[in-house]
Amino acid sequence: MIYLDHNATTPLDARVLEAMLPYLTQQYGNPSSTHQHGRAARRAIDSAREQVAALVNARPEQVVFTSGGTEANHLALLGAVHDETPARLALSAIEHASVRGAAQSLERRGWRVDVIPVDEQGRVAPDIERQVHADTRLVSVMWANNETGVVQDIRAIAKRVRKCGALFHSDATQAAGKVPVDFTTSGAHCLTLAAHKLNGPKGVGALVVERTSLLKPWLAGGGQEKGLRAGTENVAGIVGFGAAAEYARRELSGRAAQWRALRDKLESGLRTLGITPFAEHAERLPNTVQFSVPQFEGETLLEKLDQAGFTLSSGSACSSGEIAPSHVLTAMGVAREHLRNVLRVSLGAGNTEADVDAFCTVLAGLIQSSRSWRRRDAIAV
Amino acid sequence: MIYLDHNATTPLDARVLEAMLPYLTQQYGNPSSTHQHGRAARRAIDSAREQVAALVNARPEQVVFTSGGTEANHLALLGAVHDETPARLALSAIEHASVRGAAQSLERRGWRVDVIPVDEQGRVAPDIERQVHADTRLVSVMWANNETGVVQDIRAIAKRVRKCGALFHSDATQAAGKVPVDFTTSGAHCLTLAAHKLNGPKGVGALVVERTSLLKPWLAGGGQEKGLRAGTENVAGIVGFGAAAEYARRELSGRAAQWRALRDKLESGLRTLGITPFAEHAERLPNTVQFSVPQFEGETLLEKLDQAGFTLSSGSACSSGEIAPSHVLTAMGVAREHLRNVLRVSLGAGNTEADVDAFCTVLAGLIQSSRSWRRRDAIAV
Repeated sequence: MIYLDHNATTPLDARVLEAMLPYLTQQYGNPSSTHQHGRAARRAIDSAREQVAALVNARPEQVVFTSGGTEANHLALLGAVHDETPARLALSAIEHASVRGAAQSLERRGWRVDVIPVDEQGRVAPDIERQVHADTRLVSVMWANNETGVVQDIRAIAKRVRKCGALFHSDATQAAGKVPVDFTTSGAHCLTLAAHKLNGPKGVGALVVERTSLLKPWLAGGGQEKGLRAGTENVAGIVGFGAAAEYARRELSGRAAQWRALRDKLESGLRTLGITPFAEHAERLPNTVQFSVPQFEGETLLEKLDQAGFTLSSGSACSSGEIAPSHVLTAMGVAREHLRNVLRVSLGAGNTEADVDAFCTVLAGLIQSSRSWRRRDAIAV
Repeated sequence: MIYLDHNATTPLDARVLEAMLPYLTQQYGNPSSTHQHGRAARRAIDSAREQVAALVNARPEQVVFTSGGTEANHLALLGAVHDETPARLALSAIEHASVRGAAQSLERRGWRVDVIPVDEQGRVAPDIERQVHADTRLVSVMWANNETGVVQDIRAIAKRVRKCGALFHSDATQAAGKVPVDFTTSGAHCLTLAAHKLNGPKGVGALVVERTSLLKPWLAGGGQEKGLRAGTENVAGIVGFGAAAEYARRELSGRAAQWRALRDKLESGLRTLGITPFAEHAERLPNTVQFSVPQFEGETLLEKLDQAGFTLSSGSACSSGEIAPSHVLTAMGVAREHLRNVLRVSLGAGNTEADVDAFCTVLAGLIQSSRSWRRRDAIAV
């Protein structure tokens, strides 16, 4: 099987597992315990916090560990609501379901949610102020989109949001480890990260926050994570996140260059099949290409690719079961005929030129045979 | 080091780690993906759900996986609030900080929280109806207390709460794997579990719920866990929880008998030192003894035991850093002089008679030498 679905999740780096193993065996203390076992676990979390902070140029005390990106997005959106007086939020039209879901739960409490449109290349409108009102408490725009890979100009957006007096959150789940993410210079008040998107373990993420006092607690209890997120820490998971962040930081430029070369090769292969990527003129993640294969006549392209040994998806894993067209492509105004047979290739560690060649060959063959069958059916009828 | 702090956390069972390892290596799919990698991960979660359900005699579809006990307690208390009209909650006086914390966040939204007292043996008052009013939405009483180990008569309590028309939640974090916990016959509407208390991994827990429609979503997004708890699942953690639950179920009676024998030996050793356990006349967990050592003159008993190679705590790990006396012992009306030098021994897999003997000997020695030093100080003055 050739795995081309790294934006859904990545394999755990073997070096990361090695870093985790002591905390799945001898080092099993509860970090809240004051005895030797507990103190050893606490030190491991402190180190991981430094590693995660370094990946995004933040200070360790700005990192709040969570159970993943979805929870970090909820901490950002719901945590910014310090009182119960409903006000406004603004989100881009292409946010992940977890950001939209958190916003909807505020809508049910009487909040208004304004939607910031994107252009046909998936880029957030530059005049973001139009959606930011006097009572807008927080604006959320993702750093890079999980489907198209489009990278936003977060610094410019944050600057405009700050000028309006609102808090600015960016979901950097897909960006971190693929492009440089600098929290301190970005101007964002808070930033979401998830370990499993950068060869770390599932079940751990972080919200990086300018000052923890900006947020109210999400889970109350034992006071862990500066009181924002109580609960016995997932020590091995946090240690794994730290290690994955460290490798991602050290190896970022090499990984990105390798992916970009493979992606360019893939895109030129697609163009010979008459296929152009979505958002081709926007700045995109080096590992991501999303495109439609309207030449394929049928509805089972993904299934046929799966049978042929290629693991990929059409877009977000979280909406894999859905039949509705992608909200991201819809927001970009993609024409109806291009919403069928959408594929997203997302490259990762271990992908090679041979993988890309094989993919293009198999895709060409599937398109060809779908047409022959269709013609034969037509003749038979 | 002799580890006697299993109520704080337990070492991961080596067999559980073995079950997890495939999901930390080759089986890395996102369970929401519809391709082969995703489907394999989904099947693993389904199996774990069956294993966890079997531990507490629930149906698999009643198990909602969370990031731990603290989150499960929040899902129970805050999830039961379907509308925003403030009403009432009732909690026992000895609940874990995470239950009290979740209740406090409702208090800030205008809810009233009634406290159900306990007797001097740590047992919840039988006339629980006195704290359950017409507008009481939910009552929460833990199955077994983390400090004293006192086990409540959950079936009788649930029956009375149901008669009053309220929902009943029980935090069974400390009970599961130590005493039989039968969700279906208990009468509870929801039940909290945490994997790391029964030799499973940290960072995973569950809320078992009669019908998921009783609760509103805690995390929104990709719709995982029947829409109650979105976010890419911690697959390896969930698989580990399943394995730990299966071993706990199969080995429960053997483990309990072994702990009970060790605990009885420990208690008889303590009695020769003039020490009686708290709640000695109540039904207690087979692995837990909490007691005060007023004979020790000083404030560093735990530290001295740590230096002597014994890892234990005074009570909850989550409040290890606190100086305030235990809210559990305070609620039981324990006299002031017995709130000093409190120790909690919580036994687990691997503890032996030799451990108990060594502990009693060292404790006797520390008491003895603290008195000699105190006398010498007195003479010197």
